[in-house]
Amino acid sequence: MKTYLDCIPCFFKQALRASRMFGVDENLQKRIINDIAREVVRFPLSCSPPEMGRIIYASIRKYTDTNDPYKSLKEESNKIALSLYEELSKIVKNAHDPFFTALKLAVAGNLIDYGVVQDFDIKKEIFDLLEKDFALLDYDEFKDSLNKANNILYLADNAGEIVFDHIFIKSLKEKTGKDITLAVRGAPIINDATMDDALFCGIQHTVPIVQNGYDAPGTILPHCSKEFLNIYNKSDMVISKGQGNFESLSEKDKNIFFLFKVKCRCVADHVGVALGNIVMVSNKRYIKK
Amino acid sequence: MKTYLDCIPCFFKQALRASRMFGVDENLQKRIINDIAREVVRFPLSCSPPEMGRIIYASIRKYTDTNDPYKSLKEESNKIALSLYEELSKIVKNAHDPFFTALKLAVAGNLIDYGVVQDFDIKKEIFDLLEKDFALLDYDEFKDSLNKANNILYLADNAGEIVFDHIFIKSLKEKTGKDITLAVRGAPIINDATMDDALFCGIQHTVPIVQNGYDAPGTILPHCSKEFLNIYNKSDMVISKGQGNFESLSEKDKNIFFLFKVKCRCVADHVGVALGNIVMVSNKRYIKK
Repeated sequence: MKTYLDCIPCFFKQALRASRMFGVDENLQKRIINDIAREVVRFPLSCSPPEMGRIIYASIRKYTDTNDPYKSLKEESNKIALSLYEELSKIVKNAHDPFFTALKLAVAGNLIDYGVVQDFDIKKEIFDLLEKDFALLDYDEFKDSLNKANNILYLADNAGEIVFDHIFIKSLKEKTGKDITLAVRGAPIINDATMDDALFCGIQHTVPIVQNGYDAPGTILPHCSKEFLNIYNKSDMVISKGQGNFESLSEKDKNIFFLFKVKCRCVADHVGVALGNIVMVSNKRYIKK
Repeated sequence: MKTYLDCIPCFFKQALRASRMFGVDENLQKRIINDIAREVVRFPLSCSPPEMGRIIYASIRKYTDTNDPYKSLKEESNKIALSLYEELSKIVKNAHDPFFTALKLAVAGNLIDYGVVQDFDIKKEIFDLLEKDFALLDYDEFKDSLNKANNILYLADNAGEIVFDHIFIKSLKEKTGKDITLAVRGAPIINDATMDDALFCGIQHTVPIVQNGYDAPGTILPHCSKEFLNIYNKSDMVISKGQGNFESLSEKDKNIFFLFKVKCRCVADHVGVALGNIVMVSNKRYIKK
């Protein structure tokens, strides 16, 4: 997905919200705004929004004097999610359709996103989302693709959320027996899951984990590591979590299924659903003919 | 009022809304965004938001190839307001308190603002506002000041709205017999009232009209003409309409009363009322001690 002009005011809003969250003083907030303004001038709209997301948070990092201002928030969301692990696993096990429940749980986990929404009650939201229907659901294509695929690459989104992904990945392995690799960001960016988060959540005991080699809040292929690209290119199917991965990969010529909650109006318009909906869509819908 | 950091995303939003209103294509919209981004970098927050408003609309004018993209909209709002003139004058005449009703009508007229709000039904909104109470009302100070003043300077805000101001100015003249001068912008900016609008609405038959010599959507004194400043300095009392005049004059050491509808969150927070309220406030509330 390209960057829409309406993303631009939102870049500045995000920068302000995040810098305030980390107690950046007003003078430094203006310097962050100035950094972004300078970047906006040279930013081509053909780039996807996560490329600007990377720039925004790089600027904030510069002034907060820490490499990972979201570290403690990520740790907290990992812990909260892990504390729900047993209960959620039981819900999946006892469900009428355990596999679909695990899938839905994975997208419900996508609500844990400090980058877009700040205040939430995780547990309540999860149960609300489990009751919610997908606004778009390419489930037949998804199951068909699962049957045919040998290698599946699973792109993680946020810390905390990866615990939900873990439950879904276990369900995927049980149901299909296919080779699955989990990919995380190459370095800290917002609250996105990194190797540390994945290891903390114990996912290495279920599937191999690879870092994508870049620190954008999405998957910008030209910047990813050779190791990651090798796995990406060899995979028959990609399961992609979160809006950032959708924004950066929606038009790639690859067999990708996106699972996410629609968190902003530009993406909602692009996807063709209302804000706040959950979707599971094949990228075939979005590849330009 | 200084520019708040939260005004910055809003500058970009305003630019997009206005450029789309005038059918500016997407490539030119990005160039307008780039112009504003470059200006944001060098814009000190100590300047008031109307100074950036001027820059935004100057950029849009550059790409729309017209000196006054709002011309027809202003003409339309002048005509709509003039069509209500007799009816509104009767409402004032028959009111329990004609003077206060005329004052309220003047602030009700401030809803006609294409710069901030796009869709509205003027007549319905006016009658709704006439029913509404002021969130802040320094009325005793206002009447006291009127009694003492010899020369009153009345700062207009928007086209259309000036018809409502005309009714209030007539009421002011009848009640006080004081010298009143109406000031309009020095050149077209958004839908702000200029000399053409004032003349079209026939206000020259009631009071003298002066141009302020500058084309910001507010009153930026250092840029105003000598003629205007002469009148401003000699006036014992200023009645100032609209948010833009408030933003640019709220901290001046002068006897000013501001009448406006609060149209954005930053101003609402600064003034200390909820968004959408109407206020009539003395600048003594906002002068920094």
